[in-house]
Amino acid sequence: MSVSTVAAAPSVCAPLPVLGRDVTVPLVTGGEVTYAALDYAASAPALQRVWDDVAAYAPYYGSVHRGAGYLSQLSTDLFENARRTVAEFLDCREDDQVVFTRSTTDSLNLLAAALPADCRVFVFETEHHASLLPWRGAQVTYLDAPRSPREAVETLERALADRDPYGPALVCVTGASNVTGELWPVRELTAAAHAHGARIVLDAAQLAPHHQVSVAGLDVDWVAFSGHKLYAPFGSGVLAGRADWLRAAEPYLAGGGASRKVSRRQDGGVDVEWHDSAARHEAGSPNVIGAYALASACKALTEAGFDTLVAREQYLVRAVREGLADVPEVRFLSLFGDDAPRVGVLSFVVEGWNSSHFAAALSAEYGIGVRDGLFCAHPLVRTLLGSDPQSQGACGSPEAAPGEKSLNAIRVSFGAGTPDEHVERFVRAVRELVTDGAKWNYRTEDGRCVPDTSA
Amino acid sequence: MSVSTVAAAPSVCAPLPVLGRDVTVPLVTGGEVTYAALDYAASAPALQRVWDDVAAYAPYYGSVHRGAGYLSQLSTDLFENARRTVAEFLDCREDDQVVFTRSTTDSLNLLAAALPADCRVFVFETEHHASLLPWRGAQVTYLDAPRSPREAVETLERALADRDPYGPALVCVTGASNVTGELWPVRELTAAAHAHGARIVLDAAQLAPHHQVSVAGLDVDWVAFSGHKLYAPFGSGVLAGRADWLRAAEPYLAGGGASRKVSRRQDGGVDVEWHDSAARHEAGSPNVIGAYALASACKALTEAGFDTLVAREQYLVRAVREGLADVPEVRFLSLFGDDAPRVGVLSFVVEGWNSSHFAAALSAEYGIGVRDGLFCAHPLVRTLLGSDPQSQGACGSPEAAPGEKSLNAIRVSFGAGTPDEHVERFVRAVRELVTDGAKWNYRTEDGRCVPDTSA
Repeated sequence: MSVSTVAAAPSVCAPLPVLGRDVTVPLVTGGEVTYAALDYAASAPALQRVWDDVAAYAPYYGSVHRGAGYLSQLSTDLFENARRTVAEFLDCREDDQVVFTRSTTDSLNLLAAALPADCRVFVFETEHHASLLPWRGAQVTYLDAPRSPREAVETLERALADRDPYGPALVCVTGASNVTGELWPVRELTAAAHAHGARIVLDAAQLAPHHQVSVAGLDVDWVAFSGHKLYAPFGSGVLAGRADWLRAAEPYLAGGGASRKVSRRQDGGVDVEWHDSAARHEAGSPNVIGAYALASACKALTEAGFDTLVAREQYLVRAVREGLADVPEVRFLSLFGDDAPRVGVLSFVVEGWNSSHFAAALSAEYGIGVRDGLFCAHPLVRTLLGSDPQSQGACGSPEAAPGEKSLNAIRVSFGAGTPDEHVERFVRAVRELVTDGAKWNYRTEDGRCVPDTSA
Repeated sequence: MSVSTVAAAPSVCAPLPVLGRDVTVPLVTGGEVTYAALDYAASAPALQRVWDDVAAYAPYYGSVHRGAGYLSQLSTDLFENARRTVAEFLDCREDDQVVFTRSTTDSLNLLAAALPADCRVFVFETEHHASLLPWRGAQVTYLDAPRSPREAVETLERALADRDPYGPALVCVTGASNVTGELWPVRELTAAAHAHGARIVLDAAQLAPHHQVSVAGLDVDWVAFSGHKLYAPFGSGVLAGRADWLRAAEPYLAGGGASRKVSRRQDGGVDVEWHDSAARHEAGSPNVIGAYALASACKALTEAGFDTLVAREQYLVRAVREGLADVPEVRFLSLFGDDAPRVGVLSFVVEGWNSSHFAAALSAEYGIGVRDGLFCAHPLVRTLLGSDPQSQGACGSPEAAPGEKSLNAIRVSFGAGTPDEHVERFVRAVRELVTDGAKWNYRTEDGRCVPDTSA
């Protein structure tokens, strides 16, 4: 997992075709523009290739597993092949299991339900809530935000060494921050975890769409990621890794598919034999289209080549950073320093602006879709802003209150489908808004900052 | 919830267009035929209308909730509108919540996790494993298979009256059996539950695709169903009903979206305020396409009209029953008697045939997709077969062993997209196989019964 940096633009490849690339949206100031989707870190558009694969398969969709028909057998094979494709994409070890879930959040809740008794969990306060919150029932040690990769490793080592009793432990760490985009020292954290008798799960929700993730190479015990951030928004995610804890755990969901044999006992109760394979945690009819779409995305990214994708993305990251370098009102949020390696995810605040107001203006006046709020990482954003933001909304953010001091942040994020023009428009829009202000008035409605069209 | 019976065919409407209706599959005996998908009870094909809606929306897919962009707001509105559409489809009470899950299995596992302390669960042994198994941690009373709807009500009443202590209780009951297709007396069971201070959840996985389900009319406390059986196979399901237990419960998944505010405490721990709305149990990015597809199916079925759909389906049920009435080798499985009202789901065994073998021949020689096995309802099928089948496979069924005594069953099921020709071909095929035997040899491979093409 390394970040290539390119010296010049000419070597940069074209974006991969995605759905929605021709969609136009109205501007409050009149006219229409093509929509600039710059919220990839929340959900990326579907790759055209993924959509084409789903559309080609959809007429052949059939009931999986014990269906005797031709399409049932085709669908069953396709589902199990998707599992193998994901294992290859992640460079899994031979004995690893790939469990299809609905999302990273679901994957980490599954792992949380599979912790051995007395397992302690160590997690940095800087994590996304999906990594921060699932460990209910376990004793959790929240580690303070480190200010360098090295401090992260040292903090973890100290906490693991000091644990009392020195029993089973799990570390959960992000590969790339969903707020700052910064890469975390996964290999070093993994070595530290293993040196101290702990296991580690990698939250690759933000990493896998941007960098090759090798489970075997990084030596992580598990990895979790989501289809909807990996250009396959069809309701599926993955937990992949060591089988032992998964096999020993109670099934995540109880129902058909997970059960091998169910019979009533003489005393009126029910005995259940559960599967030992990934099916153990996949009760219910699987989301075949979701799994197939995710596997299609894995193939498409592999074929495009991560070196190529990283080069392009770093070119776009530089375009944002350099394009706004001389705008002092714009402050990028960072734990590890402005020049730390990162994926195409950048959060910032604009002096004198409420972030929701700024984001609303980017949308209404420029057709640019970014995100405002606390990005489901409240403690981290609070630390980075140095304030105690009032959090509301689904993922927590204050209601937009135009003109007030910023209590939350703006995030711009992009990826394999982003054309240069989207990032160039974004840079131009930020500069114009900072210099000239918004062209329109905005008001708060149902917790959203929207153009005031009442005048 | 009533079953209309029609006197004659002329009033029967055309099938609704579904994906795959023109797909052809090869026959082992040579040539190709259009595929007859007769495994609707496992997974139904997507309605063409559902696919068209998904395809029209897909380019407009955007990150939901705090995304500030035009497509994010459009997608957020579409997701929340889908929730309202489902509430209307189910005729929910005003204060009911609609939670999007991944499937019926997931919905019932969610409810199981929301049971109050000391809540007892009452469930008939005849249920699908999705209804039978999720109640881990609760004391479960499994009720013996009733042989009439009246016996079902009496059995439940007795069990509820006799419970000691007479504390909180939940009854889980299917609306239509996934094995026999028979309708259960939901209204009467609900009255019995309420009369005895218990609540009731309706497993409508097999009912909702075939009959109008009115939560308010039936007075059930919750209802669960799946998109993939309702012509919307995009990984979503629903739990809808009373909000009180759901609001009082710990979030089903812990993560972003479910959390309103997350902050670190002075002592290093983390405080979380959870949402009280349906979002409480929907952590992680929602499956917007799945929810939208499910809502599209709800609209399509409502617009087609359940009276019309039921009339057509009963016509097809009669075609199967009457078409095979004079074939003594075919024995239909039934709890409540051959003439009991049912949806388009019929299971049977064929004297002298292994069911897997028979199902394989229907597929390979006639292009008909049915299901063989125990249908994720092992105790019920065991009761109906009067044998102790060896169960294997994902949903449990013996390996096909051509020529041996039948240890499992065959299920044929259909619905709104089934043309007459599929059912006519099925009847003809069953008659031919019984009379003339299979034209081909079959062998077991990887747990499947497949044509032996080695000769």
